[in-house]
Amino acid sequence: MKKTYLVTAFLICIVAACTRKKSGGIVVFQTDFGLKDGAVSAMKGVATGVDPDLKLYDLTHEIPAYNIWEGAYRLQQTAPFWPAGTVFVSVVDPGVGTSRKSVVLKTKTGHYFVTPDNGTLTLIAQSLGIEAIREINEEINRRKNSQGSYTFHGRDVYAYTGARLAAGVISFEQVGRELPPAVVTIPYQKAVVQGDSILGNIPILDVQYGNIWTNINDSIFKVLHVEPKAKVEVNINRNGIPVFNGDVEFVHTFGDVPEGKVLAYMNSLMNFSLAINRGNMADSFHINSGAEWNIVVRRKKPN
Amino acid sequence: MKKTYLVTAFLICIVAACTRKKSGGIVVFQTDFGLKDGAVSAMKGVATGVDPDLKLYDLTHEIPAYNIWEGAYRLQQTAPFWPAGTVFVSVVDPGVGTSRKSVVLKTKTGHYFVTPDNGTLTLIAQSLGIEAIREINEEINRRKNSQGSYTFHGRDVYAYTGARLAAGVISFEQVGRELPPAVVTIPYQKAVVQGDSILGNIPILDVQYGNIWTNINDSIFKVLHVEPKAKVEVNINRNGIPVFNGDVEFVHTFGDVPEGKVLAYMNSLMNFSLAINRGNMADSFHINSGAEWNIVVRRKKPN
Amino acid sequence: MKKTYLVTAFLICIVAACTRKKSGGIVVFQTDFGLKDGAVSAMKGVATGVDPDLKLYDLTHEIPAYNIWEGAYRLQQTAPFWPAGTVFVSVVDPGVGTSRKSVVLKTKTGHYFVTPDNGTLTLIAQSLGIEAIREINEEINRRKNSQGSYTFHGRDVYAYTGARLAAGVISFEQVGRELPPAVVTIPYQKAVVQGDSILGNIPILDVQYGNIWTNINDSIFKVLHVEPKAKVEVNINRNGIPVFNGDVEFVHTFGDVPEGKVLAYMNSLMNFSLAINRGNMADSFHINSGAEWNIVVRRKKPN
Repeated sequence: MKKTYLVTAFLICIVAACTRKKSGGIVVFQTDFGLKDGAVSAMKGVATGVDPDLKLYDLTHEIPAYNIWEGAYRLQQTAPFWPAGTVFVSVVDPGVGTSRKSVVLKTKTGHYFVTPDNGTLTLIAQSLGIEAIREINEEINRRKNSQGSYTFHGRDVYAYTGARLAAGVISFEQVGRELPPAVVTIPYQKAVVQGDSILGNIPILDVQYGNIWTNINDSIFKVLHVEPKAKVEVNINRNGIPVFNGDVEFVHTFGDVPEGKVLAYMNSLMNFSLAINRGNMADSFHINSGAEWNIVVRRKKPN
Repeated sequence: MKKTYLVTAFLICIVAACTRKKSGGIVVFQTDFGLKDGAVSAMKGVATGVDPDLKLYDLTHEIPAYNIWEGAYRLQQTAPFWPAGTVFVSVVDPGVGTSRKSVVLKTKTGHYFVTPDNGTLTLIAQSLGIEAIREINEEINRRKNSQGSYTFHGRDVYAYTGARLAAGVISFEQVGRELPPAVVTIPYQKAVVQGDSILGNIPILDVQYGNIWTNINDSIFKVLHVEPKAKVEVNINRNGIPVFNGDVEFVHTFGDVPEGKVLAYMNSLMNFSLAINRGNMADSFHINSGAEWNIVVRRKKPN
Repeated sequence: MKKTYLVTAFLICIVAACTRKKSGGIVVFQTDFGLKDGAVSAMKGVATGVDPDLKLYDLTHEIPAYNIWEGAYRLQQTAPFWPAGTVFVSVVDPGVGTSRKSVVLKTKTGHYFVTPDNGTLTLIAQSLGIEAIREINEEINRRKNSQGSYTFHGRDVYAYTGARLAAGVISFEQVGRELPPAVVTIPYQKAVVQGDSILGNIPILDVQYGNIWTNINDSIFKVLHVEPKAKVEVNINRNGIPVFNGDVEFVHTFGDVPEGKVLAYMNSLMNFSLAINRGNMADSFHINSGAEWNIVVRRKKPN
């Protein structure tokens, strides 16, 4: 009798020790909501209600209102630095209530993206690769008692589904039916070599400092064979109208040129970029970013 | 002997398994401090010092300086989406150092609100209901060695007490003496039916998008029997002076009207609201929010 | 046989109970990056990749671009309220890529500061005391595969090293070689008694409210023997040019003077400060902060 009792107690004890709570999953939120009201906090409240041990972080909530392109860019810029398994919930959703699909993208790197499929996935699908896409079945994956509300999908569908996926409450398969492996894509000009030049686009500014970031990555740029401290000719135009023309020194780092001087460098994403050392190049030359902002770079020929 | 030893070991083992650290409590901070200085971080440092396993989140720190009404509104907007047991620490405190009481409200839903009782609790007390209110006994519930400081109650009393309550270091009863179940209340116009119209107030804007939110909830609005896609007559006035008059389509969602068009809808809190699809209605018509901003809505009669 | 089995099970059980995951270390981030792009999130992603159980918080990311002095001030203002062992990662780094050293300061209070040694440590080294300084060995303490990138030390060196230190992956000794116990220091005017006056500096504004904070702490101020509700003569000048002169009541708290009136008080850091009750003194009198902003305070003689 006693031995049976002892063995039973052992088993209880071992089960208790082994079912210890594991560390929660990770959810990273991005929106164009700003932080002045309670919308982001309500999303995190819903996620916390799913599992209080989730680790909830932010990408940014300062995406300009309705700017899907910038949302797409920020995901591409940031997601690779988070561990596989991280669930991103991105809500930049000017078409809320229209027929755009609500989806979860699983990339080949094992990251998840919960978002309206409205172009937000344009860049991340290209850079991390599509493993599978599923449409969120809102009959199941929707916060309880939220059916009367037609406008806050961010909280009731996206945050809720992202949290349940990260917490392991649902599997990726339980998100909903699988879709063909393609996302809604915003057209943009890719970086291409044309003769002795590279043609590219300015997808984004490094807004805090006014640095100009292009989509010309280092493997394309290498085609020009530009040595450090050599000069490049740069033409920036908007819809073909010239905005900046100049010969710029290509350096490793800002401190390699005097204060106030324009420099070219590879940014932290290893894309060709322009800046003014301790200055704001975008403001100084009235340069902005977007599909209509293009750049031509060529190696400066020694005279 | 051996059996006694075994049984003792069992007990130790079971106790060890059962006293595993539970996941920490949840504290949600709201202030008008902004995020440019170290004030919010100091509050979180104090909370972390109480218990490093607390989960610390933000509602917003962008409440306009001294705007108690907006603080009250944000709590009402957000708190219901957080789990019961969540401790909110709200510090919008223009009267710091005056005789306003420092209190903890426990609502009927099991949420806690640690705040100066200066009107901040106006709306949450009405919507979630008062279970009990206790005055913070600052002789006990005050960060050690902070007696010389007269001006940062947010850190030394509110964050400290909220953290200790969330962590289970003190019980609700240990906050201090119980007060009568009433809070300091800011007067405001409630939504009422008047003949064939509903009279209401614009307590807040959806600032990021410039949408107009009213305090007319869906159960009151139903009195008008407005079908989706039908029109309503809307008059917005400030202190009785007309600011906006128009016939507006009542729809489920923004995408139901063309871009640039005004629409009426139920927002995510199920309150009657107005917006411009992909536009900013507040800016376009110079509409703001507050006690002096009122609205009249009636069903548009078919001609 | 059975007893051996039982004892083995015991041991497994006890080991399981004792190897429970401890709570992760704490990392607090400060930058001049702002929150509009993905830079801060990428830093947190890298830290999470080191150890998902780290607790990641923010001091502020709104340090004005390149303003090392303000970064130094915010550390001093905030760090004492976080528990010993907290790792601060501060990246205000106009000289990135130049010869400034990357260091970790351990203070006598047991706090760690991971930062470029460019003046950021000026104030915290003085107030918390230098226990030891080590230079980050970037050959070891650098995110894998980040050697090609020359410009984001914040993510690849500072966040990575801070996270590994907080998580216990490396010890303080493993940061790199020990340096002499001195930091790069920004010169500034200290508070001094001069006859019947105290001469001091305005290192920072309480920006959200426009309050004027000085570096005159309460132990120096006591020299003047100013009773509560007594008046002090205040002269504020910029590079010697007078900006504000006035007799100001010294009170415990804002509510002690009427709305709109200037008051003097000890702020939450116990430094002599000036404000307008429910107003913005910095805006009203065009007062700012920095090395060139000085103040003279003396006790108002009764007439």
